[in-house]
Amino acid sequence: MRYNQSIQVKAPATVANMVCGFDVLGFAVREPYDLMTLRLREEPGILIRHKDSFGLPEAATENVAGVALMALMETINTPVGFELSIEKQIKPGSGLGSSAASAAGAVVAANLLLGDIFSKEDLVRFAMHGEKLASGVKHADNIAPCIYGGTTLIRSAFPLDIITLPSPELYVSIVHPQIEVKTADARSILRQQILLKDAIRQWGNIAGLVAGILQNDHGLIERSMEDVLIEPARSILIPGFDKIKQASKAAGSLGGGISGSGPSVFMLSDTAEKAGAVAQAMQDIYQAIGLEHYTYVTTINASGVEVLA
Amino acid sequence: MRYNQSIQVKAPATVANMVCGFDVLGFAVREPYDLMTLRLREEPGILIRHKDSFGLPEAATENVAGVALMALMETINTPVGFELSIEKQIKPGSGLGSSAASAAGAVVAANLLLGDIFSKEDLVRFAMHGEKLASGVKHADNIAPCIYGGTTLIRSAFPLDIITLPSPELYVSIVHPQIEVKTADARSILRQQILLKDAIRQWGNIAGLVAGILQNDHGLIERSMEDVLIEPARSILIPGFDKIKQASKAAGSLGGGISGSGPSVFMLSDTAEKAGAVAQAMQDIYQAIGLEHYTYVTTINASGVEVLA
Repeated sequence: MRYNQSIQVKAPATVANMVCGFDVLGFAVREPYDLMTLRLREEPGILIRHKDSFGLPEAATENVAGVALMALMETINTPVGFELSIEKQIKPGSGLGSSAASAAGAVVAANLLLGDIFSKEDLVRFAMHGEKLASGVKHADNIAPCIYGGTTLIRSAFPLDIITLPSPELYVSIVHPQIEVKTADARSILRQQILLKDAIRQWGNIAGLVAGILQNDHGLIERSMEDVLIEPARSILIPGFDKIKQASKAAGSLGGGISGSGPSVFMLSDTAEKAGAVAQAMQDIYQAIGLEHYTYVTTINASGVEVLA
Repeated sequence: MRYNQSIQVKAPATVANMVCGFDVLGFAVREPYDLMTLRLREEPGILIRHKDSFGLPEAATENVAGVALMALMETINTPVGFELSIEKQIKPGSGLGSSAASAAGAVVAANLLLGDIFSKEDLVRFAMHGEKLASGVKHADNIAPCIYGGTTLIRSAFPLDIITLPSPELYVSIVHPQIEVKTADARSILRQQILLKDAIRQWGNIAGLVAGILQNDHGLIERSMEDVLIEPARSILIPGFDKIKQASKAAGSLGGGISGSGPSVFMLSDTAEKAGAVAQAMQDIYQAIGLEHYTYVTTINASGVEVLA
């Protein structure tokens, strides 16, 4: 127990789904990230302060980091308290795992202050309470890569079975158009019934993508990033999506698609130069439309939540 | 061109689907296998003789090996002929890739007699004509492992994209109950519409199985061999299926399921002893029911069609 000590962590953004791996695949990126400082207190209770302008709730029961910490505290006998300061840089609603970063960062920091008593899987379970608060679903496809780093596979959510895959050496270009896509809307647009033949095509691609990641086969990763089920429905919610995809391919990208439930779009490339050209192509398209946007050029983050010195 | 020379090959049985990988995964086994002798002739035409008692057609246009050889011959300019003798040991309709073995064995042997002019992918394409004749569908999930050996992933059938996976060091117990399950019936029993949530569970498992094979993680292979879509429908066609599965697990198997479209059932184990105990458990169940059956205890075949000395 490191009472009255504090710890600062960087909690990275994450890209869920990876095109064909809806609800099961995700990876962490180096940028953007949230900065969080957690202090362990002897007095019970959770105090949360946001040092950003997103206007997120600070009451523990209404804050994703708060409910994740509460889930963690329920499992320890000693009454403790936390003081948490969050400087969010991952915009809520971006499709870049903003809620997952807050929840994951909080529990990773808490675990270290408590003497490293939990497994990573425990921490994922605590942080999933934050996802439940944010979206109504206890999903782990952003939480797991945020905590483990690299690329993760959620083979099963209930019971939870997380498989870590090696991190392919790839560059990531991300564009975040400043429009709002609610996760609930992005979910409700999906058909609950699908054709078996489409599912077969999808799982051939997922199997190919996992094999490509594990064998570091960029060509196979490229061929496998095809989504015949989710992208055709959801991409309608993202202005210029098809153009972004075409221009990114033309700029040398291996391919990519919607990050999580959008509106951010990610593309993978095998060199920093190509990733830069892809980001430029993304920018050009949104500048032509006149849509405000942010772009990032980053890499897959093999370490997940990181403790700062 | 090795005119008037002949070559003998062993074409192995194959297990398609691997439980959760419907239409995309398959592996070759050491036993059973077909023995085939092919002779290259200067006179055009294909002469086929069956040295077994299955009563399969010997006219080239009606024989799976015949149509595969015809597809191959269409691509070469020199007119040649073949004389093929087939001693089938893989019973037609067993769900063990009997038609695939005949077609694959024939084209592999032909290629060697013609001076090794085709790629393995070419050979798969030729042999798929045999599957078209046998089942109406040009599928590759038995043909590919039969030709490449080991475990293969058909990421996509059109365009064809075959991924070879390393062969896990596992033992295979197979039981073939002597009932007939027509591939067409096994197909028609499947729903063409499925629930997205079931598809997600299935592709989590497929991704897990591929990761388990590539990382040689037997626990992950075990957890991933779950089929929520196909097995519940098809297993009704196989007497005692649930009992076979339970008894195999109790005997130490990692799990398994229907081989191809059945009626054969396969189980994977990590030792020869367990695989033997599993086969015994399978036998006991069919003996109690009074159903005639064959069992095999074998291993995954990393080499595929093999040329005999």
